[in-house]
Amino acid sequence: MSLPTVDLRSDTVTRPTPAMLEAMFQAQVGDDVYGEDPTVQALEEQAAARFGLEAGLFCPSGTMTNQIAIKAHTEPLSEVICEQTAHVYLWEVGGIAFHSGASVALLPGDRGRLTAAQVEAAIRPLDNVHYPDTRLVCLENTHNRGGGSCYALDEIAAIADVAQRHKLALHLDGARVFNALVATGQRAEDYGKYFDSISVCLSKGLGTPVGSVLLGSKAFIHKCRRIRKAMGGGMRQAGFLAAAGLYALEHHIDRLADDHRRARQLGEALATQPYVEFVLPPDTNLVIFKLKPEMPADTFLQHLEQQGIRASSFGPQMIRFVTHLDIDDAMVQRVTDTLADLSVPV
Amino acid sequence: MSLPTVDLRSDTVTRPTPAMLEAMFQAQVGDDVYGEDPTVQALEEQAAARFGLEAGLFCPSGTMTNQIAIKAHTEPLSEVICEQTAHVYLWEVGGIAFHSGASVALLPGDRGRLTAAQVEAAIRPLDNVHYPDTRLVCLENTHNRGGGSCYALDEIAAIADVAQRHKLALHLDGARVFNALVATGQRAEDYGKYFDSISVCLSKGLGTPVGSVLLGSKAFIHKCRRIRKAMGGGMRQAGFLAAAGLYALEHHIDRLADDHRRARQLGEALATQPYVEFVLPPDTNLVIFKLKPEMPADTFLQHLEQQGIRASSFGPQMIRFVTHLDIDDAMVQRVTDTLADLSVPV
Amino acid sequence: MSLPTVDLRSDTVTRPTPAMLEAMFQAQVGDDVYGEDPTVQALEEQAAARFGLEAGLFCPSGTMTNQIAIKAHTEPLSEVICEQTAHVYLWEVGGIAFHSGASVALLPGDRGRLTAAQVEAAIRPLDNVHYPDTRLVCLENTHNRGGGSCYALDEIAAIADVAQRHKLALHLDGARVFNALVATGQRAEDYGKYFDSISVCLSKGLGTPVGSVLLGSKAFIHKCRRIRKAMGGGMRQAGFLAAAGLYALEHHIDRLADDHRRARQLGEALATQPYVEFVLPPDTNLVIFKLKPEMPADTFLQHLEQQGIRASSFGPQMIRFVTHLDIDDAMVQRVTDTLADLSVPV
Amino acid sequence: MSLPTVDLRSDTVTRPTPAMLEAMFQAQVGDDVYGEDPTVQALEEQAAARFGLEAGLFCPSGTMTNQIAIKAHTEPLSEVICEQTAHVYLWEVGGIAFHSGASVALLPGDRGRLTAAQVEAAIRPLDNVHYPDTRLVCLENTHNRGGGSCYALDEIAAIADVAQRHKLALHLDGARVFNALVATGQRAEDYGKYFDSISVCLSKGLGTPVGSVLLGSKAFIHKCRRIRKAMGGGMRQAGFLAAAGLYALEHHIDRLADDHRRARQLGEALATQPYVEFVLPPDTNLVIFKLKPEMPADTFLQHLEQQGIRASSFGPQMIRFVTHLDIDDAMVQRVTDTLADLSVPV
Repeated sequence: MSLPTVDLRSDTVTRPTPAMLEAMFQAQVGDDVYGEDPTVQALEEQAAARFGLEAGLFCPSGTMTNQIAIKAHTEPLSEVICEQTAHVYLWEVGGIAFHSGASVALLPGDRGRLTAAQVEAAIRPLDNVHYPDTRLVCLENTHNRGGGSCYALDEIAAIADVAQRHKLALHLDGARVFNALVATGQRAEDYGKYFDSISVCLSKGLGTPVGSVLLGSKAFIHKCRRIRKAMGGGMRQAGFLAAAGLYALEHHIDRLADDHRRARQLGEALATQPYVEFVLPPDTNLVIFKLKPEMPADTFLQHLEQQGIRASSFGPQMIRFVTHLDIDDAMVQRVTDTLADLSVPV
Repeated sequence: MSLPTVDLRSDTVTRPTPAMLEAMFQAQVGDDVYGEDPTVQALEEQAAARFGLEAGLFCPSGTMTNQIAIKAHTEPLSEVICEQTAHVYLWEVGGIAFHSGASVALLPGDRGRLTAAQVEAAIRPLDNVHYPDTRLVCLENTHNRGGGSCYALDEIAAIADVAQRHKLALHLDGARVFNALVATGQRAEDYGKYFDSISVCLSKGLGTPVGSVLLGSKAFIHKCRRIRKAMGGGMRQAGFLAAAGLYALEHHIDRLADDHRRARQLGEALATQPYVEFVLPPDTNLVIFKLKPEMPADTFLQHLEQQGIRASSFGPQMIRFVTHLDIDDAMVQRVTDTLADLSVPV
Repeated sequence: MSLPTVDLRSDTVTRPTPAMLEAMFQAQVGDDVYGEDPTVQALEEQAAARFGLEAGLFCPSGTMTNQIAIKAHTEPLSEVICEQTAHVYLWEVGGIAFHSGASVALLPGDRGRLTAAQVEAAIRPLDNVHYPDTRLVCLENTHNRGGGSCYALDEIAAIADVAQRHKLALHLDGARVFNALVATGQRAEDYGKYFDSISVCLSKGLGTPVGSVLLGSKAFIHKCRRIRKAMGGGMRQAGFLAAAGLYALEHHIDRLADDHRRARQLGEALATQPYVEFVLPPDTNLVIFKLKPEMPADTFLQHLEQQGIRASSFGPQMIRFVTHLDIDDAMVQRVTDTLADLSVPV
Repeated sequence: MSLPTVDLRSDTVTRPTPAMLEAMFQAQVGDDVYGEDPTVQALEEQAAARFGLEAGLFCPSGTMTNQIAIKAHTEPLSEVICEQTAHVYLWEVGGIAFHSGASVALLPGDRGRLTAAQVEAAIRPLDNVHYPDTRLVCLENTHNRGGGSCYALDEIAAIADVAQRHKLALHLDGARVFNALVATGQRAEDYGKYFDSISVCLSKGLGTPVGSVLLGSKAFIHKCRRIRKAMGGGMRQAGFLAAAGLYALEHHIDRLADDHRRARQLGEALATQPYVEFVLPPDTNLVIFKLKPEMPADTFLQHLEQQGIRASSFGPQMIRFVTHLDIDDAMVQRVTDTLADLSVPV
């Protein structure tokens, strides 16, 4: 009997647990385009309340929540400040230009994290017609490309202060914001003080099949509802999906600490291998590392694949492991054993 | 004990039947952004095969499938020919301009249906720099605003011939294409001969909670997959939703004839009321009618509401009834009784 | 010795008079992107003052002034209300969609003129997410496709009232606004009370080689200056062109009455020809007429061409004559003689 | 009697010489939107022929020629590779996003110059739906922000080879391409072998008041002509401006060597000042230098201003001097004298 696949490619691959599935199929639903799905509404309200914001909008993906927010905060000929490897810039198909006609000021972060000083220096001078009009700052927490790094709340507060002084909106790509909260002990309700909008993904660490929620003020979400319709994100009986989100908010947040512990174990195992050049500190559930030249990435991934272990290529010689709901301690053991068995090919 | 609401507002309001819900619950799922959800793939393949096209793309809404197709067939400074009350123009938030930067040539149809001659006359002259570049013709079948009217296959063929001669793409907004097929006896597989792309909605007459499928050639759908990602329509374990679509393709098509019969019954009942000015022929499941001035639309809708019957306002003094999976013969009887009881207010 | 060509195709074909040319080459110039061209500034100020508005912006074309204004008044997912044959919709390459991502509500006018009631009925209902957000009304005066028809000031005032009540901006495409002023005796300074922005073309009836001026409030023009830069309309020593505009404002307005008189003469001559089906009343300098089927438009244009007379095709069997600075009485006589000599081909 | 201002801010500030003005005054003109301006056509043909390309398009600015080219080479969801301080990205108001809906891959160059290896590494992997579709590489020669640096022809050839292998278009922002040609001794006709399109500015070193020419294949320019109309760049009797361009092509190219010599003289003078931190090598007509902290940029500029010398701020403590047609040897002497007289403020 073959062992189950250990899928470390992404926390998006999780399948609902039986209890989550049960919650989904018990859901009360209605036509959400008419504003009549009680489960969607409950999810939107609970998520907003948790982050200290007024209203929420359930969408089919985190790309949609991010891109709706960017469109709502800007207009064409605006500019968005973000880190040069931010998901909103790098992995959303150039959506900032496509949906919003906005330019990007790309800053080099410390493992994806910007500083208030960097942000302030990147604001274009007013009244010079050669420049776009800086309108929005996007942060990402945890930062994917930075290896799941977390912002200190002080730095968020300092960036929010810059944004406020310059009348810029501040958006959070919170694809893995619960990982950040659990890892740092920060409180969700504090985020609403600093961010004008937050995109919260439910289908990564939280383990639901589909969906993200965009949070903000009532007026902002009202505006975003029309944008969602234009983007094709108006779904009918979406309560089946939202029910999974409600379940996850209740049951799947605290357990992220286990994912983080397992990521640290993987990171430690990697750090001792002779074929690994470096490992980014696994602050949350992402483990990004670089292989030495003598271990080609393709060879490495094939070795793992033969042992039923899947991981993602993440740039030249770079690999990403992600822990999540479907990765348990036994699987982590299998991975560390496999890593140890790998010898550098001659 | 109160009677159930008779919701005639739209065929989007249906809730899954127990059997459909069971099919959803049993679905095999995977991460569809990685192309690994077997149920989504089965739905895309079956829907494409049914219409004689090569490939399909599952999306969260019909607005998304339509707008992706329009974007894929055009580029900015193009023009799209469509009927002046087409859903793609009128009820998709101006998405043709927003997503595609394309202009619209709006033609007056016969209950929403264009002729080949109209289409040909609307093509902008080549090599005149003042005009956008005509690239795409969109038809809608059945046509919503036209009261569920159906195209004759001959006219579709004639329009396809114009499109081909002028190198225009031809897209079908098939939000209710199965209603058209059932009502006319046309065969789905013939449609693939004429249309470059077809948007098929699963959450209207077919009764699924969420989703539409875009159909076309392999190359076209390949291009559309990136656009879907940009629009935020890449969903993870979407198989739960796709399973409902597969179920509906098997079980919910033939029964549309019952919706059509009930729509005719409603149309006949309306035609005999003294307060009704006219009823568009209910060719499928939509019944659009105009009230005389002495019966204000608001009053009419309130009367119905008091009897637990809901309908949609559809322009000044215009009302739309829609029959669907959740409307049975007893409900139709309740509606016709209520219509008869209504006296013209003095 | 051959007679000079009578070019009735458009009032854009005029060449500067010797006096205008002299004014151009005496112009003081500077780098207008730096805001240092005194002649451009003088033109912007004089044009604005004349129409009772605060500020102006010199641009290379009327298409640019119109499209900048539309972009500045809207954002993507907005809708613009205009007549269905408005220049901004029909002959600016679908620019409303391209530059502004805005949809269009196209209304049938009386020779291009809208009424306040029509405009009000076309405003999309608020708070319905299916619709774009109505933001702008564009009028065109005189209306090109309407045959140089003029708005009554009362109707402009009534439309401005609708716009104000619904918080819509009101833009005037004034490509031929001086023709309207001269024909009706309206005063330019009254226009500033009703319109938020006005595009005034200098290279049509006014006879300059290049340029239009966009007028509005200081804040509006400030915003438009950045859009102009983005569109590539920031010119350096543009004072050579602006000087022609200043000259024309002083010397070429009153003489438009001559163009109108000549257009009437042409209209009268046409009306008596057996091969002419109808002539739109030539209220200003445009004469639009339809040929009977027995006189094919191509044949007609070739006959004129052989006599050194050029005119524009303007739709099936439709022809447009335009009088302007380079058309004198002798030329009008040549045209009327030629029209009389034309016999219907057998 | 006061001395004339020495305006080193930009080579855009030049005023036409009497001989150029005479050429403008004598120009034969026509309506270029109708394709009837012989002087515009002559300029387009001569410029194209000079660079070994088929056709040209005269536009009011270099921003327009660049942005038209980018729009023509891409479609929304494309990506453009360029240097991180390229004019097309940095100083054209975010136009790549606004006009083309395209994303940017921003690379750090050597004084603005990219290498073929950098370009190749920046091409997004095909068939990954998270990425935009790389379509275009833009080079800038000379590179403004790089201090007027020039590409070696070998590197251009190597980049063109990468572009060709990956089916990318290659565009040259040739705002100062004649400076590059004169400085390196490269031949214009070789450029047509490597670039799909070239934007040539006439109003910088060449000294004309207004205009740039976009060059490419006949099919490309045909497509661009419609885009120019949409952007509002269709001008009527533009021959007055084009005549200056024809004059400059004949008389103002060789003399750029004088500008370069004067720039070197300024660079040498700056390099010896105690308050200058560094000077970028003045390879052509741009002299970019950094002031030490003890000489604040504002103070420095004010000192110069008091002596009738103007220069541009070019980033924190960075200053740019530009030599051009209106800067002669006496002026250079005045500047070097002034630089020497400046003492570091205590």
